[in-house]
Parts: sequence; structure tokens; C-alpha cells
Amino acid sequence: MTDKTSNQMWGGRFAAGPDAIMEAINASIGFDKRMASQDIAGSRAHAAMLAASGVITDNDAEAIREGLLTVLSEIESGNFQFSTALEDIHMNVEARLKEIIGEPAGRLHTGRSRNDQVATDFKLWVRDQFDAAEAGLLALINALLSQAEAGADWVMPGFTHLQTAQPVTWGHHMMAYVEMFGRDLSRVRDARARMNECPLGSAALAGTSFPIDREMTAAALGFDRPTANSLDAVSDRDFALEFLSVASICAMHLSRFAEELVIWSSAQFRFVTLSDRFSTGSSIMPQKKNPDAAELIRAKVGRIYGANTALMMVMKGLPLAYSKDMQEDKEQVFDAADNWMLALAAMEGMVKDMTANRDSLAAAAGSGFSTATDLADWLVRVLKVPFRDAHHVTGTLVAMAESRGCDLPDLTLDDMQGVHAGITDDIFTVLGVENSVNSRMSYGGTAPAQVRAQVARWKELLG
Amino acid sequence: MTDKTSNQMWGGRFAAGPDAIMEAINASIGFDKRMASQDIAGSRAHAAMLAASGVITDNDAEAIREGLLTVLSEIESGNFQFSTALEDIHMNVEARLKEIIGEPAGRLHTGRSRNDQVATDFKLWVRDQFDAAEAGLLALINALLSQAEAGADWVMPGFTHLQTAQPVTWGHHMMAYVEMFGRDLSRVRDARARMNECPLGSAALAGTSFPIDREMTAAALGFDRPTANSLDAVSDRDFALEFLSVASICAMHLSRFAEELVIWSSAQFRFVTLSDRFSTGSSIMPQKKNPDAAELIRAKVGRIYGANTALMMVMKGLPLAYSKDMQEDKEQVFDAADNWMLALAAMEGMVKDMTANRDSLAAAAGSGFSTATDLADWLVRVLKVPFRDAHHVTGTLVAMAESRGCDLPDLTLDDMQGVHAGITDDIFTVLGVENSVNSRMSYGGTAPAQVRAQVARWKELLG
Amino acid sequence: MTDKTSNQMWGGRFAAGPDAIMEAINASIGFDKRMASQDIAGSRAHAAMLAASGVITDNDAEAIREGLLTVLSEIESGNFQFSTALEDIHMNVEARLKEIIGEPAGRLHTGRSRNDQVATDFKLWVRDQFDAAEAGLLALINALLSQAEAGADWVMPGFTHLQTAQPVTWGHHMMAYVEMFGRDLSRVRDARARMNECPLGSAALAGTSFPIDREMTAAALGFDRPTANSLDAVSDRDFALEFLSVASICAMHLSRFAEELVIWSSAQFRFVTLSDRFSTGSSIMPQKKNPDAAELIRAKVGRIYGANTALMMVMKGLPLAYSKDMQEDKEQVFDAADNWMLALAAMEGMVKDMTANRDSLAAAAGSGFSTATDLADWLVRVLKVPFRDAHHVTGTLVAMAESRGCDLPDLTLDDMQGVHAGITDDIFTVLGVENSVNSRMSYGGTAPAQVRAQVARWKELLG
Amino acid sequence: MTDKTSNQMWGGRFAAGPDAIMEAINASIGFDKRMASQDIAGSRAHAAMLAASGVITDNDAEAIREGLLTVLSEIESGNFQFSTALEDIHMNVEARLKEIIGEPAGRLHTGRSRNDQVATDFKLWVRDQFDAAEAGLLALINALLSQAEAGADWVMPGFTHLQTAQPVTWGHHMMAYVEMFGRDLSRVRDARARMNECPLGSAALAGTSFPIDREMTAAALGFDRPTANSLDAVSDRDFALEFLSVASICAMHLSRFAEELVIWSSAQFRFVTLSDRFSTGSSIMPQKKNPDAAELIRAKVGRIYGANTALMMVMKGLPLAYSKDMQEDKEQVFDAADNWMLALAAMEGMVKDMTANRDSLAAAAGSGFSTATDLADWLVRVLKVPFRDAHHVTGTLVAMAESRGCDLPDLTLDDMQGVHAGITDDIFTVLGVENSVNSRMSYGGTAPAQVRAQVARWKELLG
Repeated sequence: MTDKTSNQMWGGRFAAGPDAIMEAINASIGFDKRMASQDIAGSRAHAAMLAASGVITDNDAEAIREGLLTVLSEIESGNFQFSTALEDIHMNVEARLKEIIGEPAGRLHTGRSRNDQVATDFKLWVRDQFDAAEAGLLALINALLSQAEAGADWVMPGFTHLQTAQPVTWGHHMMAYVEMFGRDLSRVRDARARMNECPLGSAALAGTSFPIDREMTAAALGFDRPTANSLDAVSDRDFALEFLSVASICAMHLSRFAEELVIWSSAQFRFVTLSDRFSTGSSIMPQKKNPDAAELIRAKVGRIYGANTALMMVMKGLPLAYSKDMQEDKEQVFDAADNWMLALAAMEGMVKDMTANRDSLAAAAGSGFSTATDLADWLVRVLKVPFRDAHHVTGTLVAMAESRGCDLPDLTLDDMQGVHAGITDDIFTVLGVENSVNSRMSYGGTAPAQVRAQVARWKELLG
Repeated sequence: MTDKTSNQMWGGRFAAGPDAIMEAINASIGFDKRMASQDIAGSRAHAAMLAASGVITDNDAEAIREGLLTVLSEIESGNFQFSTALEDIHMNVEARLKEIIGEPAGRLHTGRSRNDQVATDFKLWVRDQFDAAEAGLLALINALLSQAEAGADWVMPGFTHLQTAQPVTWGHHMMAYVEMFGRDLSRVRDARARMNECPLGSAALAGTSFPIDREMTAAALGFDRPTANSLDAVSDRDFALEFLSVASICAMHLSRFAEELVIWSSAQFRFVTLSDRFSTGSSIMPQKKNPDAAELIRAKVGRIYGANTALMMVMKGLPLAYSKDMQEDKEQVFDAADNWMLALAAMEGMVKDMTANRDSLAAAAGSGFSTATDLADWLVRVLKVPFRDAHHVTGTLVAMAESRGCDLPDLTLDDMQGVHAGITDDIFTVLGVENSVNSRMSYGGTAPAQVRAQVARWKELLG
Repeated sequence: MTDKTSNQMWGGRFAAGPDAIMEAINASIGFDKRMASQDIAGSRAHAAMLAASGVITDNDAEAIREGLLTVLSEIESGNFQFSTALEDIHMNVEARLKEIIGEPAGRLHTGRSRNDQVATDFKLWVRDQFDAAEAGLLALINALLSQAEAGADWVMPGFTHLQTAQPVTWGHHMMAYVEMFGRDLSRVRDARARMNECPLGSAALAGTSFPIDREMTAAALGFDRPTANSLDAVSDRDFALEFLSVASICAMHLSRFAEELVIWSSAQFRFVTLSDRFSTGSSIMPQKKNPDAAELIRAKVGRIYGANTALMMVMKGLPLAYSKDMQEDKEQVFDAADNWMLALAAMEGMVKDMTANRDSLAAAAGSGFSTATDLADWLVRVLKVPFRDAHHVTGTLVAMAESRGCDLPDLTLDDMQGVHAGITDDIFTVLGVENSVNSRMSYGGTAPAQVRAQVARWKELLG
Repeated sequence: MTDKTSNQMWGGRFAAGPDAIMEAINASIGFDKRMASQDIAGSRAHAAMLAASGVITDNDAEAIREGLLTVLSEIESGNFQFSTALEDIHMNVEARLKEIIGEPAGRLHTGRSRNDQVATDFKLWVRDQFDAAEAGLLALINALLSQAEAGADWVMPGFTHLQTAQPVTWGHHMMAYVEMFGRDLSRVRDARARMNECPLGSAALAGTSFPIDREMTAAALGFDRPTANSLDAVSDRDFALEFLSVASICAMHLSRFAEELVIWSSAQFRFVTLSDRFSTGSSIMPQKKNPDAAELIRAKVGRIYGANTALMMVMKGLPLAYSKDMQEDKEQVFDAADNWMLALAAMEGMVKDMTANRDSLAAAAGSGFSTATDLADWLVRVLKVPFRDAHHVTGTLVAMAESRGCDLPDLTLDDMQGVHAGITDDIFTVLGVENSVNSRMSYGGTAPAQVRAQVARWKELLG
């Protein structure tokens, strides 16, 4: 912690001089080995195509394809020796292939280059993550639907500005998140469809003079078609940026829900009890439950959007075609994907396990003159008072109740008629919380019947 | 610039005390008046629906709808007096409506609230911008197609790391951007379709007890359907965030193209001449052309992504339903939309006006042993030399040419056979730049025929 | 809202064609006129120096300096006609000067260029904002000190994870924000000192051959010294980025405090009552107070950090020296500065006006076994029980109290001795909330005496 | 790559169910073990202070301090078994300490908590990185000073808008970066001084009732003083955010320089030759040198600013005191610090190794009528022509030269006098590039004498 120490540290880090620095900044094998299975899948498809196109022999292709399976099994079993000197996953795999099968390995790279190879590998990896995100979102939505179904008619306060506004139902609140995560799902699917074009065969940037069949490799790897411009194919990272954008918006939704869970878990709210599995306790206050998982989920939007920012800034102003700057793409996406999937899983787990405290919810729902709007709407609907005037009458009655320390239903009919002569006994039918939520029957409203209809619609949608 | 000055300035800004501060931070009329026509369209649809549903009389609805047209014409003609005391566009319009038509104005707000009203207005505004972006992208793509068609066979260097790698064609390079802007167009359309659900009738957050017909207002306003959850409808700003995400990626594409135009305009490159209209000169160096428009376009990704960051951070961790924080959404989107449209228009104009300097492009295309890959590929294709070995032979020949200060086609057959005995005269057919690009016939490759096929495909796509 | 409309809109915006587009993207007068007084101050200093250095005559200098005062008064009185054709504030001022004083105006620009001129103007503007921020921070800190002094011994819950952890005092909580805003103040001062170097005289980028005296202009404009490298001087926007960084961290602090105020204002917490001036009501629920100002302050960190992101991205990868991209700097800083100052003023106003609800705070402070730590510390301190064991004993006692539905002080000595035999009557002295906070006498702790000492230290610091 | 695969992957990741998910999201030992030495240093200082304050015995303190050294040596030698079940570095160290020394280990945690402990550890870690950054910046500045000294009078084009504007010198250009990195150094030092306050002893959030001596631990750990508010001390992450802000601005400077190196290395510019150590070649084009290190450095600003964005978003709106969200701070700072140090070292290495191509630089410096400004300035200085008129005359002469395909010095005196009768033979003394740069003697100008003076100033500053 002295200058001496820090200089030693500085020196220590880069003691081996420029070559060590260059290796440290240049090599990607430390992280791109996560794309090993994608790299090998791409190479196997490429070899098969080269043989089918007559560029290499069937024997060579067979040797390559078998050799690659050997390499894959070595990697999967943890017996592969990665080499930083070989820089990246592509060269590591090819060098090992050469050791295993010899000369035919040198024919694999015909009609492609590292530029289209890495684009293909990375797209395959990202596509897998879109699929994982879809699975995670579906699981979370299903957990929410279960909560919504169980609590379709449990009343709770609906807030604006964190102030009680009108009563809503637990199911309605859960279904709001179903809508959000449903939009996330829609974005995931759109983005996956858009990115599903195969760069393989774009070669360094100009395409190739070998008679390759790009449709064949595209199909073999599950792509819908080959990319249509080779310069673009090796320069494009839209699929990564769109992945990060979609993940960021979803993580923002998760942060909102997590915030609510933190607030709802406070001693002051007590709206919800999280399970022990997703809380941590205190050795000294055994009754305490810290909503750690919710807080960590809330934070993930920062991490994921930070990755989005990083890659946007990397790509800004890069001339075509491939620039080495683009090597910074993978770690951002890897980290964001890992944290997105983790946050989805943790939220699904919390939602499944959590318990709504119905009594606290109901008590809070009825406080704060939360049915004042219902009173005003009754004046408009029944007495045909203009909306703005009805608000005025209601305000007077609320002020009266507040000054008496009572609630709206506790006012007498006389009290009410003193403010507006036309009020009848019928008004008491709308002042209860249950009546209030039951009356909100507009499409998408909080009435339990509407909530149940939406649960049913979603169940059908999700099959 | 002294403390005194700055304190005066400080004092001056907020001299009127807390009320002035609150008005300054709270009022939105300064910017949300841009949504006047959307607000009035929404209110007119709502009034018609209220009458059709029997909530208000046909006469009242008619008065409201006519009165709103009067307000609109006042605003459009600049004769409307906006009031900060009335805070926002909604209250300004309604207050003026009351002045014009009297009591029926008080019935307009039945079955809705400011929360669903602002969400509806803002969605209509953003939807218009998606449409404007679509128009702008189509215009830019068409300008690029014209350039690509004209220069389908103009050779130029293809770069990696800004180092000459292989020859490509001008048309191929233009088409790379067509692919990028084509993906932007696809994102615009997906996002517009996803957001096209109408929040109107969600009321404050819980829906309403009035028998409103949300399908009717949705249809009247061009929405595909009403939103399905009232809590979500007033809390959701996904449509704005997705707009900003889509705009950001597009602006990144624009920044890459702009960077190329700046570099290509330098005295050292001279690849392109921008028109006087999109450059600025120097009073002292009349030959100088500063690519100001390109530089400004390059910068826009910062501004647009900055807006994205701002709104993401605003939305992070907000509990449901409406919070006042969300009022910060509009200025970000307005500014980003204005700048996105401007950048698209400026780029379209530059592309239409710019002139490729074919001689400079061709000279640069042939330098730097840019056909070395073609030589290697010939060895693989014709002599069946393994790819990695062919690279070694080629490297030796390039080094030989470099040491002699000549280019690859200037080596003799003897020279070449000295390095690899199997080389024949046929090799000279692949060393020319024209031959090189013509040979890249793989799908999406740089061969002029491929470029022309892609131009044709896009023209058909765009109808 | 149809394609036709949007195309018209598109067309409408840019109907006048390329020239209108170029003017729209290129001209800066729409925003840089905010730097009029800085521009004129710089030009007046420059003219005086040119005369003192013998580059222009005293008569010319005098004419220029007087003429500029006339221009300034025209601008300040709103009688100046800004011209977009003249692009920016510099040309607008100079052109008007020429109209007023004729030929000598043409000598003003000797030995400088627009590049150093705009850097100087902008630095002067930003420096004023640092001064305004200092004033705003001091005012806010003083408001917090008043709250802290008044409530140095008002007990309230201290939270971790929004769960009650230990009692603290209101004054202690206020002083935590004094520390935060105090660090912001320190950053403001450091940044202002660092940026206070004058670019004027760096000319276009290379300096000048005129015998100018840069020390003189620097001094006249309140700078500490001239910048030391002319290339850097016209390329540098660090001062703007550091302003935005400092503002962002401060806005983050504001967002945390604002979040607390929103939560504390909820019906569930009722820790604080905001004044009517900084809340908005509901026409229908007169008792409701929406913490609008707090929510808007909470949102400002997004806006300010968005500006930071925008300018960071603009500056990324710009070659030296001036590029037109840098014209995007001003609007970001203007908007961030305006909103920072507004947020500081609004927070100061809210803090001055707000009322702590002492009863709610005290009741919450004592709930949740908040003095369990004190019990454990007593075991360690008095009985010399190891810390980790003391926690175990305490946990057992808390669980006992919880199961009985009572609080810790309600347990009998027998109960306690049943868990740990060594416990004596003395333990009850640490179980009360008041005793708890009084005992936290470590430096910086929550004891009222410590809080008062910190208030005194800050008052002395601020003079 | 089928749904089945992705579901398996999804399932695979979290197969062990909720407990595995919670462990994955909650445990920090995977990354916070990097703070092991800081954690042990903090605990050793704490134990010594507890003994000195009479809270624990000298014997216990000695056992703890010795035991911690044993733990440290186990960690440093790689023989320590980290446990995820123990969650973080603090519990891992304490648990192992207990195994080694038994009961006294349980007394170490007296008067502190994990909240102040982690804040202390992290501050120590960040402080080390400020020191490392200082060392890295000094090394880079020294490398630039060497380049500047060697090339104080090598002429090269000065660009605006990447267009040749005026001649400058290589040394002047290098010194522009010295100024930038010098400001970075200043920011590093300011930030380090500001953050150098010790949180230890703030305990969970309220301070402690033990008679601890916070001055003593602060001094032992090299801090200037203890923090002044315990709530703030455990809630504050300003030091991390300021580290990231400072690093981001520096990384932006690196990106600008890296961009120049990429452009200067192009075949079209050939201004500079990078060493083989910091370039990568092509097996097929041995003459090719890809500026990989420069491109990777250019990209680092994205990564570092992405970390800044992430942590800003995490901290937004967090209520006091500690929330688990804050656990997301470390990975961002670790990654940013590693990449900042690496980028500084790589840039230093490149600068040391690179070779300016003096001939290319000189040839480019003289092209494009780069001394037109000198001609205009001569008219102003010698003939007293007003600046704006001098520009007009110069423009006419440049146009004349351009139309003749010659350069300015190739015009005859007659030609010149035809445009302005007052011009004399003396004018030819300012038209040469060498004369031009020599004449820019204003402070901070590009004249070699000025450059050498700045080099000398910096050498003295740096000692």
C-alpha cells in the first residue's frame, strides 16, 4: 500500500515486458473457449459442405469431422490443454485437430476465415441464449400466473407515487408483470428470428472463389439462410447489441418487481413474506429476513445495461470490415447472459415461494379513502354530475371523514346529502373495497373476473 | 464570474422561492405541448366512445369533438395561450375546451385519467416517429442502392484493421450498409407492431366501472387492440425504451458510415468527394472541404444512446403504477427522435450527392499485394495444396515481391516456380484486381454479379 | 397517423431539401447563444491584449470593446436579431459588431480562431456552473445541518436491506447526506481548479505567430494560467466530462435521498411529511400528498448521467485536433447543468420544509428487536463472552421474546439467566432505544453527542 | 440448439433447484477473494486496536494477528481452500482463523461488522489501483516525453476534421497527449486523497458502544482519518464511482490516441510504423501489420465506461444504509482496473516502440496549402490588413495556385502583387513549412522551441 508496493505490483503485472503485455491484451482464449462446442459444430458443417461441393475429398471431410468430435470430447471432459500462445478457440481447436488427424486438418480452413468463423460461433452462442431466455421467461410467467390465479380476488392497495390510490387485486398486480415479461418474450423471439442468418462462407470479408454452398452450412447449423453481404457479415454485431437491449429492458422489469418485493418485505408494509431460501437471516435477530435475492436481482439491470453501453461504445465509429476492437464483444455478452438467466431463475424461485399476507394487504387496501374515486364515479354515473364537479363533492366528503377520524362508509346518509342533496342510500354499495374492485370490469381492469379472463388468455397463448 | 455573480445567478434563477422551483421542476407544458394533436385525437375518440356507450349524450360528445377541433386549430395556428399554471398539455386543452363549450367539457374526463391519457398520447407520438423512421430508412436505402448499382464493379480496397486486405467493389461496400439499415427497418417494424396497443380506458391504474368500449377507441386511434392490464398500461414505457434501443443501433450504423466518409475524404485517402452542400469550406483555403455533416452524424449515436441511458436509469426500480419520475420520458424521446430523423436525412443527402473517386479507389485496391489471398486460393484449388501450406508459399512470394519493390504480377513464372514447382502460367489470371473481385462468386460475395443480384433482391423487397 | 401523414411530416421537416438539412444539422446558434456573455467577455479581453501587445491600435481596441458592450446590451435586452445563416454565436456577435463599428471589427479575430474561441467561451460557461453548483450544495448542506441540529436526538430505525437493523437518530441520518454532498462539493472545487486554464490564443490548433500575451487574457478572464499545448487546448473537453461526472455522482446522492423521502412519505411509513409546496394533491382525495418533487429529483440522475454517456461516446476515438463532432458538447452540458441546479434547489426547499414525524420514527425505532445488538455487545463488554457466542445467546433471547409476542425489555431477568447465567440486572440499561443510540459514542457514531459534534465541525468548515 | 437442448441447458444450470440459484446469486467469494490481503491487513489493524483500547487482551490480539499471517500465507501460496458456503472472503478468513487459533478468533469481530469491513477492504483495494494508475500514467508520460524530445522539430500536418489545416511538429502532437494524461494524473491524485478515509469501526451502520480508537486503525492502514458518519461510511461507494469516472476519461484519451495510431498506420497515411511486438501479421501478407493492440486499446473505453454505467445504475435510488445491491460493485471495478492498467501498459509499450516516418510526415505537412494561414497572418502583421480581408486575399491566391497545379511558394511576386499590391518579397519567408512552425512562438504553440520548453517543464514537474 506504499508507492513501492504499487510499483512492484505494476511491475509485477507486466514484468515480462512488452510480449507479456501484448499477449495479455490480445489473446482471447481465456474467454472464447466458452464457444468451443459452437466452433466445432461450425467446422463440422463446413467440412461436410466442402466435401459435398467437391472442394475437399470425402475422406478428408470424414477425418476432419471425426477428429473434431474427439477434440470436443476432450474439451467437455476437461482433458484439453488450452494454449494462450494459440490465441483463440479457433486456433486451439485446429492445432489439436492437426495433432490428431494430421495433414487433412490443413484443408478445413478452405473457403472461410477467422472473421466469418468467429461471427458464426458467436451467433450460435447468442442464439442458444435467446432460447435459454425464452425458457426462463416462460417459467417465470407460469409462476406469476399461479400467483395471479390463487389471488385473483385478494384486495390490496394500488399505488401511484407510492401513495394509496385505488384498491386493486393481487392477481391484477401479478398479471401486470405477466404483460411485461410477455413483451420481453416477444422481443426475444423477434430478435432471434432476425439474427438467424449464417455468416459462414463470407470468408475474410469479400466472399470466396471456392464453389461453396452456403445454403447447406446455414441449414446444417439451424440458420434460416446465409447472410447476404460478406462485408456486413464479418462487421456486424447487431445480434449481440439487440440481445443486450432486449436483456436490459427485461432486467429493468425485474428491477421494478424486485424493488416492490423489498418494499413489501419491510416491517412497515408486511405485504409479502419471502421464503427462507431467498432471504438471509441475522445470527442475532432470528426474526429478520433480508431480501438479498431481490436486492441482487434489482442490481442486475445495471450490470446488463453496462454491458450494452460497453459494446455500443466499442462499435461506435468502427470502419468496415473486421477490426480487432470487436473482440471485446464476447465477455460483455457472456456476463450479461449469465446474469440475466440467473436473475430470471432467482425471480421465478422467489415468486413460487413467496406468500402474500392477505390480512395486511386487505387492511392497507381499505385505508386512505381508497374508494373515493368510486364515490365520484357513482355521482357521475347515477346522478349525471359532470366528472369535474363530482370530484369536488367527493373531496368535500373525504375532508369531512378525515376531520372526524372516520372512513367514508362511516359517514351517514344525512352527512352526504348535506354536501349533495341527490345522494341516495345506494351509494354505500360502492364504498367497500370488494365492491370497488368488482366494479372495475373494463377490459384489462382489476375486477377478479377480468383477472381470471387474462390468466385464461395467457394460459391458452402459452399452450 | 466571481462568487457574487454566481450567487446572484443562483439566486436569480430561483429568486421567486420554492413555488418557482416547484413550478420549474413539475410543469411539463414546456415540452409536452408537442403532443397536442395526439392529445386531441385521443380525446375526440374517447368522447365518441362515451356517447356510443351511453355514458354521455350524443350532444355533449358532439360539442366536445367540435370544441376540440377549435382548440387544435388554435394551437396549429399559433394562437393558443399555453399556461404553465395548468402544468401539462392535457389540462391546457381541457381548460380551453371548457372556455369554448362550457359544462359538457367537464364530462370528457369520465372513465379515464391523466395516467392513461398521457400513455396514449405518448404512444401515438412515438408511433408517428416509427413511421417517420421507416420513411427515412427507405429513402436512405434507396440512395445506397443507386450508388451500389452505379458502382457494382468499381474496385476499391477492402479493409480489415484499416489495412488493405482484399479488393472489393464500391457496390458491395454500399450494400453492406443496405443490410445494416435493412435490419434497422426490420427492428422498426417489429417494435411498432409490438407497441400498437391502446392504453386508453385503463384510467388511473385499476380500470373503470363505466361501461366503456376500449375496442372502439383502440380502433379509432389505429391501434390493433387495447392493452390487457390497466396497471401495466399506465406503468409501461417499454415502447419508448425500445424506440431508443432501435434508434441507437441505427445511429451506431450511421456513425460507422460517417467515420468512413471522414477518413475517405482525407487528403491521404481521397476515396470520395462530398458535395459542397454537406461540407463547409475555409475562407482561407478554398480547396478545403470539411466533412462537417459526416462528423455531426457520427456524433449522433452519443446523443441518442445518451437518451436511452437516461430513460433506462429513470425506469430502474420504479414500483407500480405511475410515478412522477416517468415524466422525464418525453424530452429524451423527443430529442432522440429529432436527431435520428435529421441524421437519416443528412446521410441520405450526402449519399445522393457524393462522388466516388474511381481512380483513387482502383489504385488503392491494387496496392499492398491485395490479391495474395487469390494466389493462395489458386494453389489450393488448382494444385490441391492444403490451405495452411498455400499460405506459406504465398507469404514467401509476397516477401520476394516486396524485397524487389514490385507487385505480385511482376514476378516471373520462374520466380514463382522457384518457390513452388507446380505453379503454372494460369496463376496470372488471378493476380489482377478485376479478376479477384469477379471470382468472389459465393453468395453474398463481392463479385459484381453478386452485387447486382443483391441490388435486385432489395429493389423487389422494397417494391 | 397514416403513412401519408408521416411521410408528409417527414417531407415537411426537410421539405426545403439538402440545404435545409445541412442548416438544421450544422448551425449551433439555436443553443450556443446561451454563451453570449462569455463570448463577449472573451473578445473584450482579447482586444485589450492585442492593443497592449501592439498588434492592433488602442483606438481599434477601444472601438471593439465599446461595440461589444453595445452588442451585449442588445442581447440582454432581447433586441438582438440572431441569424441562423451566421451559424453560431461567434459569427453573430462579430457580424453585428461590424455593423456597429465598421472596419476595426475585422481586426478582432487576429491571433485567434473559432476553435480556441469556442473552447474559451464554453470553459467560462462551465466554470460559472461549477460556482452555481457550489452555491447550491452549500445551501442544501445548510438545510441539512438545520434538520440535523434540531433532531440530533430523535430516534428512528436504521435500516439495512430496508429492514430495521439498529436505532439511529434523525440527525445522524441527515448528517450522512451532509457527508455525501460534502464530497460533491470537494469534487466541484477540485474540478474547477483543474479546468481553470485559458485556451485563448491557441488559435486554430498550432498557436500563432503574432506576439500575443496569453498570460494577460488568462488573467483578465479569471483563469489561473494559459493552457500549455495549443493542439490539446482546442481538442480538450475534459472539463465538460468532469463536470458531468461530478454532477452525476451528486445526482445519484440526490436520487437516494429522494427515494427515502418517497418511501418515508408512504402511508405505511409516515416518517416524514412534505410541505404542500413540494407535493401535489388530488382533487378527489384531499388528504393525499404525492411526493412529485422527490420523484422528479430521483429521476434527474438518469438525465444527467445520460448527458455524460452522450458526451463520452461523442469523444470516443476522435483524432486531434478539432472535429465537428465536438459541437454536440454544449446541449448536453446545458441541460445537465440546468437540471442539476434545479434538483439541488428543489431538494434544499424540500429539506427546509419537511417535518419529521417524531412519533412514527420513535415507534418504528423500537420495534423489531432493534436493540438486539446492544444486548450482544453488553455480553461481550461486561461478561467477556466472545462476540460470536454473544450473538448466539442474543438470538435465543430474541426468539423467546418473539414467541411470546413481547419485546426484549419485557423478558424477565430469570428468563435471561435461563439462557446465560451471568446476565445481571444491568442489562436492562442497554435495551432501551434511547440508551442504545446514546451508547454509540465511537467517532462518527449515531450518539446525539457525536451528531452535534459533527454539526459543529461542518459549521466551522463552512465558515 | 433445439428447444430441447436449450431447456436442458437451462435446467442444467439450475438443476439443483432454488438453493443452487440462491448460492449462485448470493455468494461473492468467487470474486471478493481478490481482496484477501486487504481483508487481513484490516483485521490485523483492528485486532491491534482492540487490544490497545482494552477491549480484548494482548494475548488474544497477538494470536489473532499471527493467525491471520498464517491465513495470508496459505492464500498467497495457493493452499487455501475457499468455500462458497462461507459466502465471502471475510467469513472464509475468519473461519480458517478459528481453525488455527480457536476461541480468540471469536473476539476479532468485536466493534465492527461486515458492512464496515467490506467497505474498508474495498477502499484499500481501490487505493492500490489509484497508485497503480499513477505509476502507469507516469510511465506513459515519460514515453511520450521521449518521443516529443526526439521529434520536437519534425514537421507533420495538423488536422481539423481530418483535413490538413496547418503544419505542426511531432513533438507538439505528442505533448498534447502529455497534457491529457497529465490531467488524468491530477484526477487520480485528487480522487485518491478524497477517498482516503477509513470506514472501519462504523460497525453495521450506527457505530459501536465499544471504546474503540478509530484514529489508530485509520493510521495503521495508511488512511488520513476515519470517516465522519457511520451511516454514510457503510452506504458510500463514491470512491468506486470516482475511480471509474477518472478511468473512463483516461480511457477516452487512450481511444483518441489509438484511433490516430490506427489511421496513421494505414497504407494511405504511413505516418508511423508500429513495432512487430504490438502488431499482428498475416501468414499470407508478411508486409501487413495489423495494429491490433491499438484497436484493443481503443475499445477499452467502452468496457471501462460500461462498468461506470453499471455501478451508477446499481447505486441509483438505494435507500441507506447497506443494501445487498452494493455487492455488484466489485466485479465492475476489478474488471475496469485490470483493463485500464493493461491499456496504459500497452500504450506505453507502443509509444516506446513506434517509429515516426519523418518523410511521410514532412511530405504531408507541406501539401494542401497548409501555410495559407501564415500568408494571411503576414498580411495582417506586416501590411496591417484587417484579418477578415487578409483571409480574402489569401483565398484568392490559394485558388490561383490550385488552378495552376502548383503550391503557394511557386507563385511569383508578380502573381501576388496582382492580388494585393502591397505584398513584398518578404512574404516567401513565411510560406515554407519549417518557417511556419518556427513562427508559432505563442505560449503553448507548435514552434520547436516551445515544444522543448514544455518538455523541460514536464520533466521538472515529474522530478
